[in-house]
Amino acid sequence: MNKILGLLMSFALVLGLVASAASANTKDYKDASKDKKTTHVQVVLFDGFDLLDALAPYEVFAAAGMYSKGAVTVELVSAEGKRSVPSGLNGPALEAQAALDPNRPGIILVPGAAGKPAGNSEDAVPNILAQAMKTDLPGMLKQAFNNKEITVATVCGGTLIPAMAGLLKDRHAVTNHIGMAALGALGAIPIEARVVEDSPRFVSGGGVTSGLDVALYLVDRELGPQVANSVEKLFEYEKRGTVWKAEGITPVDFNTSPKASEEKQPAAISVSTAEK
Amino acid sequence: MNKILGLLMSFALVLGLVASAASANTKDYKDASKDKKTTHVQVVLFDGFDLLDALAPYEVFAAAGMYSKGAVTVELVSAEGKRSVPSGLNGPALEAQAALDPNRPGIILVPGAAGKPAGNSEDAVPNILAQAMKTDLPGMLKQAFNNKEITVATVCGGTLIPAMAGLLKDRHAVTNHIGMAALGALGAIPIEARVVEDSPRFVSGGGVTSGLDVALYLVDRELGPQVANSVEKLFEYEKRGTVWKAEGITPVDFNTSPKASEEKQPAAISVSTAEK
Repeated sequence: MNKILGLLMSFALVLGLVASAASANTKDYKDASKDKKTTHVQVVLFDGFDLLDALAPYEVFAAAGMYSKGAVTVELVSAEGKRSVPSGLNGPALEAQAALDPNRPGIILVPGAAGKPAGNSEDAVPNILAQAMKTDLPGMLKQAFNNKEITVATVCGGTLIPAMAGLLKDRHAVTNHIGMAALGALGAIPIEARVVEDSPRFVSGGGVTSGLDVALYLVDRELGPQVANSVEKLFEYEKRGTVWKAEGITPVDFNTSPKASEEKQPAAISVSTAEK
Repeated sequence: MNKILGLLMSFALVLGLVASAASANTKDYKDASKDKKTTHVQVVLFDGFDLLDALAPYEVFAAAGMYSKGAVTVELVSAEGKRSVPSGLNGPALEAQAALDPNRPGIILVPGAAGKPAGNSEDAVPNILAQAMKTDLPGMLKQAFNNKEITVATVCGGTLIPAMAGLLKDRHAVTNHIGMAALGALGAIPIEARVVEDSPRFVSGGGVTSGLDVALYLVDRELGPQVANSVEKLFEYEKRGTVWKAEGITPVDFNTSPKASEEKQPAAISVSTAEK
């Protein structure tokens, strides 16, 4: 039984999500390169939020905190402060630990909503989003968008909240594929990618599970690839998709301008390299 | 603005996790083939459980309930009954809605633990698991394993709970890769796959995110592939890995018996089809 406990110990050693053990060689490299900079992440809960949208990133950041000896910290917050926040459709509630601080440097992550399809009932998604828009959240997000030390990240339907607040005009963004038309109607530029970085200060993700990719990308960006890779191994998940950014060669769009590409590009093979 | 609300409505229509809308043609097929059979899923919480292990399957089953008009129902339970159950490492608590009923037909899903690495502190994983073993949970799982109408599913470190209860002797199973040696030491047969079905009544998953695959597999098995596919599209996730089962051709193991395979199989190309 001692042997089994020993094996469980080693299991616990890596599985435990706490910032107390890290390999020495990784640590030396990190302390030297990062000067003990800490990134704080606020995951924003609102009535009717979607559980996975919020908790998948939460757990990625928590694990990254463990592997980096606390270089990233994460907490659940709400616009109203410390309170129990019900998730959508009678799902379990989560306790927001503090009030969202829209001026605190770091990352603010906004999940989507889960609610009844259509209708005008209290627990229908349009009403959940409309209720969220009546809180202090949109104003706080506006402050955050204006703060150069803050990155706003959104997951799934969460992208629609800053969009409805008029904060995504002409900005590149993604949401659940079902909400892409609404995103465009709200003035954003919908991009079909799993994760979109409009600028270093606004990163959005697609449907539900893309929250894993949004968080892994931000861990990579803020702490480096080694910590992100360690979280991936622990979670047995590999970040999916290339993060879309408004840089590099703009690919020919064969869907919307077939004639232009045909006329200008005699050989299909040369299309991707001939321009720019 | 009406147009945007309309778009949001259509977004809500599919995103909302409630059992009230399903496409008619899918429904007709299902009602005919399943005779309105309902599968009930109990996700078991215990002090120190891992959030994603529990909630990723929870949300897959909840979405499957929506797409099947309630052919699957899911609730959070605990061995002790309705109570607030703290997740590991000061993570948020979730409210168990009822007591685990070990005799209720359907699926019982056991998540893993999240705790401090090593040590003997209260919040170290070995202690969290040891505490869970002192509750009524192991005895309840034994009852469930003996009930032919119940499938027990485990995710990540959750597989170690029935293993420590002596319920996995000579049974095929998987846990987080870090815990595979412990699983073997506890008498199970560790299988390196993302999801393992030892028999139709015991299904285990690997690390954290494999809970998505465990749940999607069970949705496919119980409700059919169309509902599982709809959940995948909503979540923007595709089930990963072939579910391992003790059936079909046993592949040559080149790691443990290189000589045997070399001597018996003159041409490498014939290895996979020549035996059985």
